[in-house]
Amino acid sequence: MPLGFRASAVAAGIKPDRLDLAIIAADAPCAAAGVFTGNQAVAAPVVVSREHVAAGRARAIVVNAGCANAATGTSGLRDAHEMAARAATALGCAASEVLVCSTGVIGLSLPMDKVRAGIDVAASRLARDGGSDVARAILTTDTHPKEVLVETAIGGRRVRVGGVAKGAGMIAPNMATLLAFFTTDAAVAPGVLRAALLAAVGETLNRITVDGDTSTNDTALILASGASGAPTIEGPGADHDAFCAALAAASRRLAEMIVRDGEGATRFAEVRVEGARTARDADVVARTVAESPLVKTAIHGGDPNWGRILAAVGRSGIAVGAGGVDIYLGDLHVAAGSAVVSYDEDAAHRQMVADPVRIRVVLHDGSATGWMWTCDFSHGYVDINAHYRS
Amino acid sequence: MPLGFRASAVAAGIKPDRLDLAIIAADAPCAAAGVFTGNQAVAAPVVVSREHVAAGRARAIVVNAGCANAATGTSGLRDAHEMAARAATALGCAASEVLVCSTGVIGLSLPMDKVRAGIDVAASRLARDGGSDVARAILTTDTHPKEVLVETAIGGRRVRVGGVAKGAGMIAPNMATLLAFFTTDAAVAPGVLRAALLAAVGETLNRITVDGDTSTNDTALILASGASGAPTIEGPGADHDAFCAALAAASRRLAEMIVRDGEGATRFAEVRVEGARTARDADVVARTVAESPLVKTAIHGGDPNWGRILAAVGRSGIAVGAGGVDIYLGDLHVAAGSAVVSYDEDAAHRQMVADPVRIRVVLHDGSATGWMWTCDFSHGYVDINAHYRS
Repeated sequence: MPLGFRASAVAAGIKPDRLDLAIIAADAPCAAAGVFTGNQAVAAPVVVSREHVAAGRARAIVVNAGCANAATGTSGLRDAHEMAARAATALGCAASEVLVCSTGVIGLSLPMDKVRAGIDVAASRLARDGGSDVARAILTTDTHPKEVLVETAIGGRRVRVGGVAKGAGMIAPNMATLLAFFTTDAAVAPGVLRAALLAAVGETLNRITVDGDTSTNDTALILASGASGAPTIEGPGADHDAFCAALAAASRRLAEMIVRDGEGATRFAEVRVEGARTARDADVVARTVAESPLVKTAIHGGDPNWGRILAAVGRSGIAVGAGGVDIYLGDLHVAAGSAVVSYDEDAAHRQMVADPVRIRVVLHDGSATGWMWTCDFSHGYVDINAHYRS
Repeated sequence: MPLGFRASAVAAGIKPDRLDLAIIAADAPCAAAGVFTGNQAVAAPVVVSREHVAAGRARAIVVNAGCANAATGTSGLRDAHEMAARAATALGCAASEVLVCSTGVIGLSLPMDKVRAGIDVAASRLARDGGSDVARAILTTDTHPKEVLVETAIGGRRVRVGGVAKGAGMIAPNMATLLAFFTTDAAVAPGVLRAALLAAVGETLNRITVDGDTSTNDTALILASGASGAPTIEGPGADHDAFCAALAAASRRLAEMIVRDGEGATRFAEVRVEGARTARDADVVARTVAESPLVKTAIHGGDPNWGRILAAVGRSGIAVGAGGVDIYLGDLHVAAGSAVVSYDEDAAHRQMVADPVRIRVVLHDGSATGWMWTCDFSHGYVDINAHYRS
C-alpha cells in the first residue's frame, strides 16, 4: 500500500470464523475526504464519519462487516462513536480523527464486546502489508476481494494510490453497502482531495448498478499521507491532473470489479447514451436502461432484444425529440429513428455475449453523453437475496 | 359477457398453433373510452386507438398477440390502420369505429396476410359466448387467462361489467403489454365513461408492478352498449356510484390476477404507505418499495428483512421527517422511528409467507395514503425473460 500507512484485519467473531474487522491507520495525521450515501436512511457510522471527515483531516479508518449498524437509533450512534474512540485510544489519536464504517445486516445492534476486543487486537497488529487482509475483512456477498494499486509521478517522485472496496453495487448491494477506501502517499490539500474524490467517484463508482437499491451505508473515503515526499498539490496544474488521473483509474478498476462480482453477475455491460440535451438527461436514460430487469435478463440470455432498450428509454422520463432513438449493440446498428433496421441476428447475438457487452443509445436532441456499467440478472441474484439472513 | 356484445378468436398463425387474434364487437355503436401507456415509445396500434377512441364512440376492438407492432415506423402505422379498416369492412362499420391492439415482440412487422385472413374469419364467427376465447387469444407469457364478470343494479335493471386482460404487469410485462378490455351493458355517456375508466385504472391496474418496465403497448379500453335497458348515466348520483364500483371491482380483480400470474411470481404482496404529506408522495414510496429487487427477493424467500424496506423508503426521493418511518409486516410492528423494535422473528417470518403479504410503511408527515400490489422475484422471472425470443 502507499507509504505512510499500515493496516490489519482480525476475526472479531461478528461473523463466524472469518476476518470481519479492520483498521487502516496513517503514521501521522492525513488530509482526508469522503463521499457518502444519498439514501435518507443513513446508518450510524455514516453520521459519525461525515462529522469527523468534515475537518479535512483524519488518522485512521475502522470498519466491521457482519452488521451495518443501521436503523439502530441512538444506541447505534453511541456504538459508532465508541468504535472511533476505542480505535483512537489504541492508536494514540483523537476520536475525531477516526472514520468509522460498518456493513452487513440492517437493524441489528453491534456486538460491542467483540468489536472492542477486535479493535484492540487489530490496532496491535498494524503492518505495511495488511491491505489485502482489509480487502478480505470487508466482504459480504462479494465472491472475491477487490484491491488495486496505481502508480504515477508527481514532481519527479513516484506516488501511489491504493484502494480496497466491497459491494455488489454502489446502488444496491445486498443489505448494505458499497465501501471504498483509498490511500495515497501523494501530498494533497484537503479541499483539493475532496474535489478529486468527488470527481473520481462521479465518473466511476456512481456509474455502476447491480440492482438499483442504494444502501444506507455507502461510503468512499480517501486518506493522503504525503509520505512520498512529492510536492503538495494545492490546486490546478500538471501534478493535480496526474493525481486525479491515478485516483480515477484506481476507482474505475474497483468499480468494474464490483460490477463483475455483482450478485449473480455473469456478464459486464456498458450502457452509453449520446446526443442528449444535457449530461443529466444522458445519465438518466443510461441508468434507466442499465437498471431495467428486462434489459438485464436479456443480457443474461445473450438475447439482442433491443425492443426492451427502446422501451426503457421511453419510460425514462427524458423527452425524446422527433429524431427518435438509434440503438447500437457493439458497433451493430439495430434501430434507427425508434424503428427496426435490417441487421444480422447472429451478429447481434454475438454482441450480447461479448465482454463487455456494449449498448449504445443515440438520441438526436443535443451533444451530451453519459454512461453506466451494469451486469446481467441471473438465478444467482435471486439465490443470494432470497435467503440472505435465513 | 354483457348484453349487446359478441366476440371470437382464431388461430391466425401469428404464433404457432394457438389463438392469437380476436375481435370484440358491439351490435351497435357504443360509448367508448381508453387509457394508454405513459411510455414515450408508443406502438402503432396505440397511436391509432388513441385517435379513434377520442370521439368517445366505437363499435369493435381487434387485437393480436405474437407481435407488438412497436418500433415499426410508418409501415407499422399503416398496418395498424389496415387492421382497423379490415375489421370495419367485415363488421359493416367505419374504420374509425374500430380500436386496435397488438402485443408481443417489439421491432417485428405484422405478418399482414395472416392478420387479414384472421380478421375475416374472426368476424364471421362472432358469438355471445366468445369472451373466454378472447381472454385466451391475448396471452403472451401469462400462464392462464384472466376474465371477470361483475353484476350490479342500475335503475332497477341488472347491469354487467365484463373484462378480460393479459400481462405480467401494467408496468412491465415481458415485451409488451398489459391489455385490458372491459365491456358493459350499462348506458353511460362517453365523458362519464372515460372518467370512470380513468378512476378505476388509477386505483387498480396502475397500482400493480411486476418489474417496473412500462411497455410500449399498455392499453385499457371500455365499450358500453346500454343494452341492459338501464337509464343512461350522465353524471353523479347513485347510478353513477354503482357503475363505478362495479367497474372498479372488475378492474381490481383483473389487477390481482395479473400480479399473481406475474412472470415467475409465487407470492402476492400489498405495500401500503400511510402518513405521507400527499397522495403522490405515498404512491412514490409505495412504488419504490414494491419495485425494489431486494424487497421482492426477500418476499420470495419469506425473509422479514425490513431493513430493505427502510432502505427503499430512504432512496425514494420523498423526504421523511424527524418522526422517521414505522414498518409493519401484517400487523406486526418491526420498526419505529426508523429503528428496530423488539419483535418475534418467527411471527415476522409467518407474515412474509402469508397470502397476501402485507407490508405497511407509516410516515409521520401527513395523512395521505397510497399503495401498490406486487409479487416476488424468483428464478422463474429470469427463466422467462432471459430467453423470451430465442
